[in-house]
Amino acid sequence: MNNFQFVNPTKIIFGKDEIVKLTKEIPSGSKVLLIYGGGSIKKFGLLDKVKNTLKEYNLGEFGGIEPNPTYETLMKAVDFIRKEKYDFLLAIGGGSVIDGTKFIAAAVPFTNDDPWKLIVEQLPIKNALPFGTVLTLPATGSEMNNGAVVTRKAINAKLPFRNPALFPKFSILDPVYTYTLPKKQIANGVVDAFIHVMEQYMTYPVAGMVQDRFAEGLLLTLIEEGPKALETPEDYNVRANIMWAATLALNGLIGSGVPQDWSTHMIGHEITALYGLDHAQTLAIVFPSMLKIMQKDKAEKILQYSDRIWNIPKNISDADRIALAITKTQDFFETMGVKTRFSDYGLGQEVIEKIVAGLKAHNMVKLGERGAVTPEVAGKVLALSL
Amino acid sequence: MNNFQFVNPTKIIFGKDEIVKLTKEIPSGSKVLLIYGGGSIKKFGLLDKVKNTLKEYNLGEFGGIEPNPTYETLMKAVDFIRKEKYDFLLAIGGGSVIDGTKFIAAAVPFTNDDPWKLIVEQLPIKNALPFGTVLTLPATGSEMNNGAVVTRKAINAKLPFRNPALFPKFSILDPVYTYTLPKKQIANGVVDAFIHVMEQYMTYPVAGMVQDRFAEGLLLTLIEEGPKALETPEDYNVRANIMWAATLALNGLIGSGVPQDWSTHMIGHEITALYGLDHAQTLAIVFPSMLKIMQKDKAEKILQYSDRIWNIPKNISDADRIALAITKTQDFFETMGVKTRFSDYGLGQEVIEKIVAGLKAHNMVKLGERGAVTPEVAGKVLALSL
Repeated sequence: MNNFQFVNPTKIIFGKDEIVKLTKEIPSGSKVLLIYGGGSIKKFGLLDKVKNTLKEYNLGEFGGIEPNPTYETLMKAVDFIRKEKYDFLLAIGGGSVIDGTKFIAAAVPFTNDDPWKLIVEQLPIKNALPFGTVLTLPATGSEMNNGAVVTRKAINAKLPFRNPALFPKFSILDPVYTYTLPKKQIANGVVDAFIHVMEQYMTYPVAGMVQDRFAEGLLLTLIEEGPKALETPEDYNVRANIMWAATLALNGLIGSGVPQDWSTHMIGHEITALYGLDHAQTLAIVFPSMLKIMQKDKAEKILQYSDRIWNIPKNISDADRIALAITKTQDFFETMGVKTRFSDYGLGQEVIEKIVAGLKAHNMVKLGERGAVTPEVAGKVLALSL
Repeated sequence: MNNFQFVNPTKIIFGKDEIVKLTKEIPSGSKVLLIYGGGSIKKFGLLDKVKNTLKEYNLGEFGGIEPNPTYETLMKAVDFIRKEKYDFLLAIGGGSVIDGTKFIAAAVPFTNDDPWKLIVEQLPIKNALPFGTVLTLPATGSEMNNGAVVTRKAINAKLPFRNPALFPKFSILDPVYTYTLPKKQIANGVVDAFIHVMEQYMTYPVAGMVQDRFAEGLLLTLIEEGPKALETPEDYNVRANIMWAATLALNGLIGSGVPQDWSTHMIGHEITALYGLDHAQTLAIVFPSMLKIMQKDKAEKILQYSDRIWNIPKNISDADRIALAITKTQDFFETMGVKTRFSDYGLGQEVIEKIVAGLKAHNMVKLGERGAVTPEVAGKVLALSL
């Protein structure tokens, strides 16, 4: 097992009707900005519920955070907060709203220079506005980690950053708020969480037995519950299990002490920046081909996965076990309704060169757990996904 | 799944030679009291290593915290700290030293009354001295939770308490420090961690799929690695897996959102208070009989456990699957060298009445996930363990 540090101070408040706890978590007297995305939280009454719960506070609103939140939009929030002097942020939404709120929280006190440098130069973040979250979409794990991904439209860049100052103070996870999600969003969330686990699991063995077992537990839960979430959207326990699995998929725990990959994510970010595909769609396109191309490097873990997750019998050849495990993975994404080929999205051969160029431009040239996914290798992966 | 809150701010610093990080974690200028147990950390050089690492700090020492730390000893430390005005505590040892340090941390600022009331009256703890830990014995999980158990010899009481103010600021987990543990201690630690998991897992199903999978992952790890730890004490990965499993067994995660039992622990505490048996020995005596007596209440989870942990075939009767799972559990404790009957420790029939009286005296009269373990039921459990 590798040496590691693990700390995660975010308080999780999980379950039906727990939104009433908001007033215990936000310091009284705070000037609170409610940050959200499109209109769905208005349509289904959640925004009203939050405002009613927080009626004793001085409240403001900033809506319109888009999927793949943009620097351009977020800086408008930053200006607004600086002017109106909000001192607590409450993100209400999914990973995009929460990621955006993290950038805002770090950018508001960073007045000396362009906050974009916090990302591209990974500048230290000395202080950030405190913030909490009300999660409506299980997927990214942003509700219990200190990372975020922000897009700068003007330069087609979608880049990740993380900082110890950017853990939410608390996150409220009520599975009921996910009942009204469109099927596509819950499907995307399940695939996103699944691949978050895989990025930390599907590398090479370092005898991290607990980490492997936990990762496998999350994968099995997503495989069992994912299709049910599409069929019976108002099954509380199904939604609860997916929500908790998605949070634990990326709160730092299963990745502690083990190698991590993340090449699929970095390539996926380029695809979204260039063609606007949903994050999960890009992962579903890239990941099965990544496994095929990198199968020698990952053989031991793919075999473990084929056994423990898919019960593939051990009496066939290793090559067959690996091929079958990859097929079953791809089939799972398709079962969730998330297509796995560029052609499904009307894209073809022409994408490869542009994506590879994007990787080079963002210095994503040695990806994966061994740094073996060069732009050339990425090109081969993409070619397998046409 | 049940509603829950989960928060755990302890920073884990895990791995070989990580002790050098101590100076990053303890505020410079602190007056630090090193708290430890018997002489083993002197004998094997760990105390010197800590003192050398912290040579820039104003250091003091308080040794002699006993297994099952006593109020009587801990109050001596409290008086010493109040007099010498230490402002940071560093526990170096296993669960007893860490539990004792938690009581000390809470008691030092509680000057108005007898700190024993913090335990028996569960008084709120408004502030506590900050403390960190250097773990030498994987077992109790105290290094990453806010609970402790303290014994008051004068009245034969061993009682638990917990408080949000009592999370360690950090814990350093270096598996190498466990190489020199006597076999009995590592065996006890594995059994203790195993039963910590069981107290949170072996109840009734509430569709906590992730919690179940995580609990099962810890059990499988302890079953696979436990015997190896006895055979090859200096296998780093074996020790690392046991250490991380024992921490995660009781850091609050696997018990979030699911019912919990803890009747075996409460009965075990009485046995230790009366007869001085090691904590793990008491658990190994009580737990298999508890499963036998409560098997109807716990049937669904025992069947799941028999399948997922012991691979017991499903084509035999449920009664046989349950019986076999219990036998295998008891056999595992015996394989670890921890005996499972009172007679193995020279105790007989006479213990039952006294233990039952102890439970009544400490108001432990409705134990277990459904409150069904009355003193009468406890008596039946004990009678099965003679």
